[in-house]
Amino acid sequence: MERAGLNSKGIRGIVDKPGHVTWIDVIGLADAEIVESIGSRYGIHPLLQEDIVHTHQRPKVEIHESTLALILRMVESTAPIVTEQVTFVLCGSTVITFQERPGDSFEPVRRRIRSGLGTIRSLGADYTFYALIDTVIDGFFPLMEDYGKTLEELEDAIDTGINKLVQQRVHSIRSEMSQVRKIAWAQRDAMQRLVTEADGIVDPATLPFLRDCLDHTAQVLDVAETFRDVAGDMRDLYFTQISLRTNDVMKLLTIISTIFMPLSFIAGVYGMNFNAEVSRFNMPETQWYLGYPFVLAVMATTASVMLGYFHRKGWLFGQ
Amino acid sequence: MERAGLNSKGIRGIVDKPGHVTWIDVIGLADAEIVESIGSRYGIHPLLQEDIVHTHQRPKVEIHESTLALILRMVESTAPIVTEQVTFVLCGSTVITFQERPGDSFEPVRRRIRSGLGTIRSLGADYTFYALIDTVIDGFFPLMEDYGKTLEELEDAIDTGINKLVQQRVHSIRSEMSQVRKIAWAQRDAMQRLVTEADGIVDPATLPFLRDCLDHTAQVLDVAETFRDVAGDMRDLYFTQISLRTNDVMKLLTIISTIFMPLSFIAGVYGMNFNAEVSRFNMPETQWYLGYPFVLAVMATTASVMLGYFHRKGWLFGQ
Amino acid sequence: MERAGLNSKGIRGIVDKPGHVTWIDVIGLADAEIVESIGSRYGIHPLLQEDIVHTHQRPKVEIHESTLALILRMVESTAPIVTEQVTFVLCGSTVITFQERPGDSFEPVRRRIRSGLGTIRSLGADYTFYALIDTVIDGFFPLMEDYGKTLEELEDAIDTGINKLVQQRVHSIRSEMSQVRKIAWAQRDAMQRLVTEADGIVDPATLPFLRDCLDHTAQVLDVAETFRDVAGDMRDLYFTQISLRTNDVMKLLTIISTIFMPLSFIAGVYGMNFNAEVSRFNMPETQWYLGYPFVLAVMATTASVMLGYFHRKGWLFGQ
Amino acid sequence: MERAGLNSKGIRGIVDKPGHVTWIDVIGLADAEIVESIGSRYGIHPLLQEDIVHTHQRPKVEIHESTLALILRMVESTAPIVTEQVTFVLCGSTVITFQERPGDSFEPVRRRIRSGLGTIRSLGADYTFYALIDTVIDGFFPLMEDYGKTLEELEDAIDTGINKLVQQRVHSIRSEMSQVRKIAWAQRDAMQRLVTEADGIVDPATLPFLRDCLDHTAQVLDVAETFRDVAGDMRDLYFTQISLRTNDVMKLLTIISTIFMPLSFIAGVYGMNFNAEVSRFNMPETQWYLGYPFVLAVMATTASVMLGYFHRKGWLFGQ
Amino acid sequence: MERAGLNSKGIRGIVDKPGHVTWIDVIGLADAEIVESIGSRYGIHPLLQEDIVHTHQRPKVEIHESTLALILRMVESTAPIVTEQVTFVLCGSTVITFQERPGDSFEPVRRRIRSGLGTIRSLGADYTFYALIDTVIDGFFPLMEDYGKTLEELEDAIDTGINKLVQQRVHSIRSEMSQVRKIAWAQRDAMQRLVTEADGIVDPATLPFLRDCLDHTAQVLDVAETFRDVAGDMRDLYFTQISLRTNDVMKLLTIISTIFMPLSFIAGVYGMNFNAEVSRFNMPETQWYLGYPFVLAVMATTASVMLGYFHRKGWLFGQ
Repeated sequence: MERAGLNSKGIRGIVDKPGHVTWIDVIGLADAEIVESIGSRYGIHPLLQEDIVHTHQRPKVEIHESTLALILRMVESTAPIVTEQVTFVLCGSTVITFQERPGDSFEPVRRRIRSGLGTIRSLGADYTFYALIDTVIDGFFPLMEDYGKTLEELEDAIDTGINKLVQQRVHSIRSEMSQVRKIAWAQRDAMQRLVTEADGIVDPATLPFLRDCLDHTAQVLDVAETFRDVAGDMRDLYFTQISLRTNDVMKLLTIISTIFMPLSFIAGVYGMNFNAEVSRFNMPETQWYLGYPFVLAVMATTASVMLGYFHRKGWLFGQ
Repeated sequence: MERAGLNSKGIRGIVDKPGHVTWIDVIGLADAEIVESIGSRYGIHPLLQEDIVHTHQRPKVEIHESTLALILRMVESTAPIVTEQVTFVLCGSTVITFQERPGDSFEPVRRRIRSGLGTIRSLGADYTFYALIDTVIDGFFPLMEDYGKTLEELEDAIDTGINKLVQQRVHSIRSEMSQVRKIAWAQRDAMQRLVTEADGIVDPATLPFLRDCLDHTAQVLDVAETFRDVAGDMRDLYFTQISLRTNDVMKLLTIISTIFMPLSFIAGVYGMNFNAEVSRFNMPETQWYLGYPFVLAVMATTASVMLGYFHRKGWLFGQ
Repeated sequence: MERAGLNSKGIRGIVDKPGHVTWIDVIGLADAEIVESIGSRYGIHPLLQEDIVHTHQRPKVEIHESTLALILRMVESTAPIVTEQVTFVLCGSTVITFQERPGDSFEPVRRRIRSGLGTIRSLGADYTFYALIDTVIDGFFPLMEDYGKTLEELEDAIDTGINKLVQQRVHSIRSEMSQVRKIAWAQRDAMQRLVTEADGIVDPATLPFLRDCLDHTAQVLDVAETFRDVAGDMRDLYFTQISLRTNDVMKLLTIISTIFMPLSFIAGVYGMNFNAEVSRFNMPETQWYLGYPFVLAVMATTASVMLGYFHRKGWLFGQ
Repeated sequence: MERAGLNSKGIRGIVDKPGHVTWIDVIGLADAEIVESIGSRYGIHPLLQEDIVHTHQRPKVEIHESTLALILRMVESTAPIVTEQVTFVLCGSTVITFQERPGDSFEPVRRRIRSGLGTIRSLGADYTFYALIDTVIDGFFPLMEDYGKTLEELEDAIDTGINKLVQQRVHSIRSEMSQVRKIAWAQRDAMQRLVTEADGIVDPATLPFLRDCLDHTAQVLDVAETFRDVAGDMRDLYFTQISLRTNDVMKLLTIISTIFMPLSFIAGVYGMNFNAEVSRFNMPETQWYLGYPFVLAVMATTASVMLGYFHRKGWLFGQ
Repeated sequence: MERAGLNSKGIRGIVDKPGHVTWIDVIGLADAEIVESIGSRYGIHPLLQEDIVHTHQRPKVEIHESTLALILRMVESTAPIVTEQVTFVLCGSTVITFQERPGDSFEPVRRRIRSGLGTIRSLGADYTFYALIDTVIDGFFPLMEDYGKTLEELEDAIDTGINKLVQQRVHSIRSEMSQVRKIAWAQRDAMQRLVTEADGIVDPATLPFLRDCLDHTAQVLDVAETFRDVAGDMRDLYFTQISLRTNDVMKLLTIISTIFMPLSFIAGVYGMNFNAEVSRFNMPETQWYLGYPFVLAVMATTASVMLGYFHRKGWLFGQ
């Protein structure tokens, strides 16, 4: 296995040494010529060549004669999620990978190859093919762990108070989980087809490894669905708590109004200017010796009755 | 391949030259005679002829002896979405298309034919059949991109404020995505059946191209479902924000009421007309030397306590 | 094909002329004897006889030896939807239909038979069987068109204002679409089974016609599901608009309260009866030369500040 | 067919007369010995014996050699729904039923057996097996009819007013329909498997009858799902009507506040005690000849303007 | 069958006595060497060895040559649910179980083995394999019963009042049921595959027992789904009751405001200081002989009219 900077002419110079595994890693797809020359060198179907370059494909598997191609999406950065398209082509003892941009999750494989240890040098191209796919699929796990932690933090935040930022974060996690779910769904379907149909092309010894990859995509799908549900439940909880809060605010307003409106009315009555001198029926209370204390007592009683009513209803101290 | 204005008599005059591909493009279905004469000329089943004319069919594929018919829906205009029915018939080396109205997405194919370049002139009728289908299916992509942009704009609009127009736009996008989803679902089913059952009729070399079309319909379906979910989530977010806003309004009302109702009550008490001359118990405060400043101080204290309470509850400055 | 008023004795007198198609149309199922005598005459399984009479069956197909029975539901009247059960039995060259009540959708077939034109007289019993089924299934289309128009009207009504009747209409459409969906779902399943299993019994030339019926039931199902979703979305839209309206009402209340409560408080303060003669600290403003204009100015300023605040918040003119 | 009180010893004494059908009906499962002795007598698998006694099984079918066992749930009482487990075992010419408690739906079968009429005495054990299953499955229909009536009543109740009891009733119906749906779903699956796999064990003549049972379980499932949806829709309708009611209440409050707050403010202004004797700017209106009528006119105008505003908004008389 | 403390060297010393069943129970997976040495001794695939150690696998079954491996999740503690991964390996007459932590549900099996009774000593390794799986799956039932009781208590709590804790408990039960559902779903799939594919490996006599396990996982799944639905319905009910409560609070506020605002206004009018001495039009009522009683009567009438209005609307006493 050799490592070299290639241009479209250099590709014709690649010699597939028997017993060797060749891994060609194409980074950046702007140079259409390179894709084309590799494509024609290794018999990649023109439609697949197009799919490699148009990087908005759904994850899928394409089997064309003895060439096996798998398109997956690789996590590039998180919060928000950015993924890039990676195409894996297995063609005899050659593995070709096409990436959109520099920066990938293949480092562990490179290290294993350089160190010359482990099964990766002794086994065939199939195993290298698997090992590369494996890093891409497992790249979703740290992402999901991050989301899991964020969701736990948000759950605590909702319990302690209403916060508009929390709401928007929950909303965006829900959206992103939809996205991951769509990707994981398509990747699982692709891996499923790969495992089922790769019979003649892939070494049977590699099949359990690919099946393991399939299990991992199913796990990612599971977690994405669970997290989407959790975010949805949190949205509902948040919404219910707003309503509960509004209910509390209304209660306070009603308590205040119900106590002070009658009191203010009583005060208003004795603020009227009926001429007590004209008749003994005009506001006689204002001429009483204890008129003022009497009215204050009436007010205090009214307020107490109201407070007692609200206390019995359990409105005063939380509940 | 020739291009001509046809009437129902002219059709009988079409000569299928061996080695040539004939493409008949029928625009406008009002003249039932044309459909019928083409139908009888190329052995189109009477039921299919009816389906061609009654343009509210679900996308579907019909295989009748060696005739392959595919009914799809073509995007005609957007916002709101208008689609028209297109029927593709492949019958030997002849491809027939039936459109409802002038204006279609076939221009790229026409240009490729006229320029005499590319695979379209060298390959058989199957490839022309595929190329025409491809333009119709890919016609959904710019539409979906438009929706994607609109959704992003709406998401920003919801973050900045409540707006009735936003709500109605989100609602209508959700409805339109339902529509696209229904169409894409039926088109994917039709393409799936086409790929599975077209074995003896379509050249195996064309199959990967049709499979590519199938992938594209699945992609449209995916995007439509995602957008529908996104619009639904946005509706929920919008609704939650209305509730949050109502909660804020209620808080302001409650703060104002809770501060001014007790103050007005106090003012009301000292506005009562109890005769202070009759007894020293009648509103003695009004006769105090510092009665007025004292009452103002009581009012200020009351207001401060209330404000302090609301501040502790975090109601005063956002949260 | 003959047409006659039958009683249970007359049935034994029916002579199936070779080369002729007999259509027996039983209207009203109260006379159990007729069903039984027809049943025993044409070898209808006792269980099916029961199903014919107990008119709450799900649409289904029953194949018993060479007898093909199909139970469908026929639209009888709309708003609200009333359907009646129709059973179609195909037995050799005889077609029997059992209807619950007079009034059906078979008129076009009767007319075609009477006029002696078209394929219906030249083709066999299979085609009559198909033609009758077709009218029943297509009877759902005008119904769905009516619903479509009503939904559009309701959509407009929701945009212009909150209306309790609109809400109830949307609710009932949603319920009725559930009903139609259930029927269409079962009819599609029945038609699917009919198309798949009718192989030996139905003439292959009739199969495309039955497949066309199947397509139509799928279309009814599609539309019913779409309309149910639309009604659901409208319910959500309506509900959001109530919340928005409540928000608006609350805003108005809060504006009014926030402006007039402080003003009334100020007026209340200067309505207090502190004795200005006792001390120069008791309500000195009331003795000022410009006391009253000064207080009015304070009130105007307060009101302006409040209005300015609400204007900045965008509460005053819509938004 | 004989009828006897059995204990575990008596079971060994049962003689299966050739040409006779034996039906053993075990009521009450507390006596484990009886189940065990019947089990060993008729070769019932130990696991099935356990299932018979542990009465929380999902409906299912078990085929073990030539023994056919079906576990169903029988409606015991309604509102709330109580079901008990019934196990049917068909073993040669013997039918065994195990019930949890006395009281069942087998009475019609018993009556038919006693009367010696109908097919039940002439046909084999298969038919008895069917007849018993049929009564259990059909026992769900009156239940569902009751629910249907209750739902209609609740629908009317929601239209006429908000009622907490209605809400709880709708909620509990929804829960109970979930329960029935789960049971019906499992029963349909069990019946489906019974119809598909009972080929060698059950007489082909009995199969249409079992298929009829299958149809009935599907019907129960259908109705349960519809009713659950209906209850869900009613909950939404009810909730929307609460919001609408709250909106109405808010409107009334706002109208009252908006009219009386300004009026009270005006009254408050002329209740201020500015000394008109000190200056001609202090409340000159109070000294006007027509001051009081003038202010009353101002108040009337203000109120009219407000009322006019609300009338234009359509808030005054319903809408 | 022997029982011993093992280290990685001791494993090589295990002698599989013919006719004996060996059960190796590995508790704690920190010592990778032990897993590896057992793995190489019994031919466990390296990928499966990894799965055993990485304890976040989905429940699944792996069949590799004559080795059968099943990964399940065992309930460790409840409220909140904690599960640990258990791997069962059946390899000839040896059963190996790998647990994460001490503490398991195998005690009943151990007791049965020690007591030397029952089928477990007489039957082969298959039966031991089944018996162990059975305890893990049945370990979910007491858990679900606890949840069932909690849900019933919460239902009662919701009926009696709004309580924030209830809401959070319902929310967390819903989340936990999602979790159980995911586990049960995967376990059912694994058991399904085990039952379908274990044909050559497992003794046919053990199959009914495994099928019984499958039924139990399906039951757990059923209950988890039902409980999740119930919790969701309870959330909706709770939410509706908050709205109903808010509606009640609003009604009280509106009643109080509607009664006291007009009354206070009237009092305010007669509190105005128009100079009655200047003109006979200025507040003549204040000079009437029965002015004050007259105004009190007006107020009483106003209040009665309002109360009558609310009584007619049914707002006063509940409804």
